[in-house]
Amino acid sequence: MLDDLPSLIRLLRGLQQIPYLASKNIYRVASHFLNMDKKQLDQFCAMLCDVRANITNCSTCFALHEKDRTCSYCSSLKRDNTIICVVETWQELLTIEKTGGYSGVYHVLGGVICPLDGVGPEDLTINQLVKRIDNNVKELILATNQTPEGEATASYIASKLKATSVQISCLARGIPVGSSLEYMDRLTVYKALSERRPF
Amino acid sequence: MLDDLPSLIRLLRGLQQIPYLASKNIYRVASHFLNMDKKQLDQFCAMLCDVRANITNCSTCFALHEKDRTCSYCSSLKRDNTIICVVETWQELLTIEKTGGYSGVYHVLGGVICPLDGVGPEDLTINQLVKRIDNNVKELILATNQTPEGEATASYIASKLKATSVQISCLARGIPVGSSLEYMDRLTVYKALSERRPF
Repeated sequence: MLDDLPSLIRLLRGLQQIPYLASKNIYRVASHFLNMDKKQLDQFCAMLCDVRANITNCSTCFALHEKDRTCSYCSSLKRDNTIICVVETWQELLTIEKTGGYSGVYHVLGGVICPLDGVGPEDLTINQLVKRIDNNVKELILATNQTPEGEATASYIASKLKATSVQISCLARGIPVGSSLEYMDRLTVYKALSERRPF
Repeated sequence: MLDDLPSLIRLLRGLQQIPYLASKNIYRVASHFLNMDKKQLDQFCAMLCDVRANITNCSTCFALHEKDRTCSYCSSLKRDNTIICVVETWQELLTIEKTGGYSGVYHVLGGVICPLDGVGPEDLTINQLVKRIDNNVKELILATNQTPEGEATASYIASKLKATSVQISCLARGIPVGSSLEYMDRLTVYKALSERRPF
């Protein structure tokens, strides 16, 4: 059916590589690109190449920054560099920044330890994190996701830093703000109960 | 927060233009492109430009075909060119082809009449369809979607062809195969009942 359209098949295969694009929508997305004129398409491609050329990871915290600027987190004088918040990816960093409630610095791991996907500790920035911990650092907040892999990665980091004097903390677990107990899963309610706090 | 990352902001804005990409996933898709190496990114861009350069619309039926080939529907000797199936876009053409139950030719409208979106009959290929109808064409199947706009477009086309002798039909309406009556909407059951067929 599409055998006569090899260029289109290549586009569909390329689009399949993009995460979070449902297969059933791929034909419509392909249509979107087919309907773009040459100028728009060139602009889109230029933008993709541009971002690849201009954005890099900070060599200290591994957050993203423009190549011609310094990392806005590490170089900020307003931030408390005695507290480091460890996150999986920069998306989680943005999530924490959006709260407006954190003024320390960050460390982006670049993922989680996941043997099934072939990701070991050496594929992440854990060694660089360990090297960052000196007497100046007072607290390390392990803000990995509440998934088995996230928790295992947090445990691994904690074990690596056992010998140091840094205080290690993690995010509070419990009932999300605005939600009803009735609809929460058992494990979350159990954790919220066992980790209850004074009112 | 992202103010220090103008290239990234441009990428995020570009990705927002892609249909069916949920806003909440845009950061992850941006990450996907950032993690590509230069070669992969160049290949992706080449593929996008390639499809734009190589694919065109058939001047008769407006289906897509490679520029260096003829339209596989119009030029096929196995297809019955006395029956034309009118569809909104090439995605619907593919849906009908996938059934394997149609061997006539097609006419792709390129959308539906939708005054709210500023799309009138002259923005579609309706005039070209009317010109295609000659004494050779016996049947026209209006296979627009079962939406208010789709039905209005079908009615408009039917009214345009009232003077000709071509037989106009449309897709059967009713209960989808494999579904329970209990979960069907009222209007579908009503249509299935009023348009019932001999067993």
